[in-house]
Amino acid sequence: MPRIDARLDELGIRLPDAPKPVAAYVPSVHAQGLIFISGQIPLKEGSLMATGTVPSETAVDQAVSAARQCAINALAVLKSSLEGDLDRVKRIVRIGVFVASDPGFTDQPLVANGASELMLEVFGDAGRHARAAVGSVALPLNASVEVELVAEVD
Amino acid sequence: MPRIDARLDELGIRLPDAPKPVAAYVPSVHAQGLIFISGQIPLKEGSLMATGTVPSETAVDQAVSAARQCAINALAVLKSSLEGDLDRVKRIVRIGVFVASDPGFTDQPLVANGASELMLEVFGDAGRHARAAVGSVALPLNASVEVELVAEVD
Amino acid sequence: MPRIDARLDELGIRLPDAPKPVAAYVPSVHAQGLIFISGQIPLKEGSLMATGTVPSETAVDQAVSAARQCAINALAVLKSSLEGDLDRVKRIVRIGVFVASDPGFTDQPLVANGASELMLEVFGDAGRHARAAVGSVALPLNASVEVELVAEVD
Repeated sequence: MPRIDARLDELGIRLPDAPKPVAAYVPSVHAQGLIFISGQIPLKEGSLMATGTVPSETAVDQAVSAARQCAINALAVLKSSLEGDLDRVKRIVRIGVFVASDPGFTDQPLVANGASELMLEVFGDAGRHARAAVGSVALPLNASVEVELVAEVD
Repeated sequence: MPRIDARLDELGIRLPDAPKPVAAYVPSVHAQGLIFISGQIPLKEGSLMATGTVPSETAVDQAVSAARQCAINALAVLKSSLEGDLDRVKRIVRIGVFVASDPGFTDQPLVANGASELMLEVFGDAGRHARAAVGSVALPLNASVEVELVAEVD
Repeated sequence: MPRIDARLDELGIRLPDAPKPVAAYVPSVHAQGLIFISGQIPLKEGSLMATGTVPSETAVDQAVSAARQCAINALAVLKSSLEGDLDRVKRIVRIGVFVASDPGFTDQPLVANGASELMLEVFGDAGRHARAAVGSVALPLNASVEVELVAEVD
């Protein structure tokens, strides 16, 4: 079994099917040795794990789990774009994390760690990435978190 | 006539003059086979097509048109950075779409489609890009939409 | 003395120590000739130069200074990631500037110029970058500004 798939197994993480291309944009684009993954929301088995702003509508710990789910969905897209072979990932380069935030909520880094730690667990040192985490007044489909990703691949 | 210029003609799209470099930042930078285009707002013939937050100050359909205009302005910059030759575009890689949003407005993907569909119409399959669309509390000059872009070029 | 270090001296800018890697994300990642720098907030000697939204909690001119400080911190990270040699910077490619904004505040470009002009002062033409500047409802640790950066390096 490929190394990263084995690691996902060990962690008990089952990647969902990657979302299908929708209309004029696509889940990922490969250019110049980099793969750009579209913003992922915390869909799990067809419904959103966390909706609305943090913390009034979604508690911080729920948002952390949601960020982790966004990261899992991003890995599903990444795997699909690599024809199933996550061992071709050389490095997770950057993640952008948008957290639907009440005015005055400033713990976006805590929420974003849900995504960051998933990358570290799965890829080890190759999962250590640059990051920008910011608050957003409102996100698509009322998601509490959105995560986009750039990876370097073989 | 170059292929993409002919396609723009066919679509009835006339690219404006690219904005001039302002102060310390520039409309585009070419690095490592990628062109990074600065955030574009929906200026058309010198005025903004849509201002304020969606939907209280700008209706969704106006915001969709504004996103399309941002994308047209981004193409004008891209063309200028390629010395007029849009046929050198190999792929639209990623667009980032910021939508000035009322709290609770969650249809940013609908608005962003205004930009995404323009890329598809102009470039066909090469126009299919990764995307992050998010809400923003307020945007430069009170624009309703801002679009930034990364393209891969020859 | 290396050229860019001499220039920093001339400008009276002393780079702080680069922040240490925290948990699962890192200050910078080098991939494909590009260095991606994580979002920087306006920390100066251990405290934030500007907190809260602009302009109700932080005046515009304070936010401009804070954006400059974010850029200085980004340079410190960049220098550290280049083993001390900023002369290896070929081009500042893109900066993303998030400004904690009151509803209706639309002068994000003015604030972002604090970061953009620093790049121009330090690197000259190589400091001219693409930029996206947007408003954010709230930022990490209640910072008024966050700046992320991509640079092309030798």
